[in-house]
Amino acid sequence: MADAAANPIACLLVIGNEVLSGRTQDLNIQFIAKGLGAIGIPLREVRVIPDVRDTIIAVVNECRARFDHVFTTGGIGPTHDDITSECVAAAFGVPWEPHPEAWARMERHYEPGQFNAARQRMATMPRGATLIDNAVSIAPGFTIGNVHVMAGVPRIMQSMFTTLAPTLQGGVPVQSRAVHAAGLLEGAIAEGLSAIQDRYPALDLGSYPYYRLGGNGVALVAKGTDTAALDACIAEVTALVEAQGKAPVPGEPAV
Amino acid sequence: MADAAANPIACLLVIGNEVLSGRTQDLNIQFIAKGLGAIGIPLREVRVIPDVRDTIIAVVNECRARFDHVFTTGGIGPTHDDITSECVAAAFGVPWEPHPEAWARMERHYEPGQFNAARQRMATMPRGATLIDNAVSIAPGFTIGNVHVMAGVPRIMQSMFTTLAPTLQGGVPVQSRAVHAAGLLEGAIAEGLSAIQDRYPALDLGSYPYYRLGGNGVALVAKGTDTAALDACIAEVTALVEAQGKAPVPGEPAV
Repeated sequence: MADAAANPIACLLVIGNEVLSGRTQDLNIQFIAKGLGAIGIPLREVRVIPDVRDTIIAVVNECRARFDHVFTTGGIGPTHDDITSECVAAAFGVPWEPHPEAWARMERHYEPGQFNAARQRMATMPRGATLIDNAVSIAPGFTIGNVHVMAGVPRIMQSMFTTLAPTLQGGVPVQSRAVHAAGLLEGAIAEGLSAIQDRYPALDLGSYPYYRLGGNGVALVAKGTDTAALDACIAEVTALVEAQGKAPVPGEPAV
Repeated sequence: MADAAANPIACLLVIGNEVLSGRTQDLNIQFIAKGLGAIGIPLREVRVIPDVRDTIIAVVNECRARFDHVFTTGGIGPTHDDITSECVAAAFGVPWEPHPEAWARMERHYEPGQFNAARQRMATMPRGATLIDNAVSIAPGFTIGNVHVMAGVPRIMQSMFTTLAPTLQGGVPVQSRAVHAAGLLEGAIAEGLSAIQDRYPALDLGSYPYYRLGGNGVALVAKGTDTAALDACIAEVTALVEAQGKAPVPGEPAV
């Protein structure tokens, strides 16, 4: 992953027992990974962790020191297992207190008497947090320092990420070039592929077998920030596939 | 997550640039999470890490010390980016060498001259590894110490996990009870739910809003190893929903 050495790098914390128990299929990692690549802040690690206070605090502090940006999903709703916000406050060593703007918005939103203690928790944030709005739910996410706290529900998270991304100082977008071929076997091209990777050390060249009703094959994907190198690399990969007597098709295989 | 304090606990390492770039939607976490819960080895952390040697070695060593079992997916194919096996050997400080049984099987499998250097890498393992067979591919996974190394392709991984699981010393299975209700809002029941969670500290009680074409609602899920406590807990949750004037439906909502 030397494809973007000068780019800022990111870590994602997926916070929630429901992912670790298998109750919930995560759909947030892929969306965020693609979105971050597009703005040149490649995702370098994901950690799925439980709704456990000490764990969240420790992992937030470890990761905000190691990465330029830390994104979190999950744990900012109104229920007892939604503890991300107060844990982030503890990680930063700042008070967890009503956020005036979030509080005012939510107070206006609910009928009299319905802005109860549980919902007030969603307007309670680490001191100094700035809001991340979303178009789906009244409750905002927030940023403090280099930590961006978002909802776990995919469509709310996606709206928050879409609000947040343009505000970040991005790098050079990570782009990709792909070619695939039916009937190709990884083991037959592995040595040639390794030689190509060695000639393009700044790119990340991956080989991904696929299994489709229409036939098995391999997809070969080059990723990086240097478009000229990407074009040259994928041309070499295409020639390698042809030398195996297989028909290379540009792009990824259809799902 | 005090639901299974006496059970062994597990960590999963998803190894692959393709998940971090968003190229590939992970489908392995949920399968493994459910499978481990069923044999009483709950999954407590997942880390998605890149195909980077130093990172893999460091994370394997950190996690095999912290968890009873470490499972890995990805990076055991024949190509240059498949470095999991040699990194696990380095993490354990043992030679990475031909595994006699795996080597013999693969040599028999391929046509003469086709068991090339790239494919030989798939029969090269940390000294002392025991094989994890699978019904899909000739190349096996392996176990060394408390680390179980599996393929990244979901159907191959699933076959390996199915072979492996009965050989592990499991604990008390983690079970769940659920109820859901249309029109329910988390914020309306959060305080009551928190009180129920306090009465069942050994269970893990979660609240998950859902958004369906047929109507929004909330699913309430209790997980743990004590079936009597689970039954009592979900009965209290059901009563809480009814007290809101909503109709509780047993189980999770249909997808």
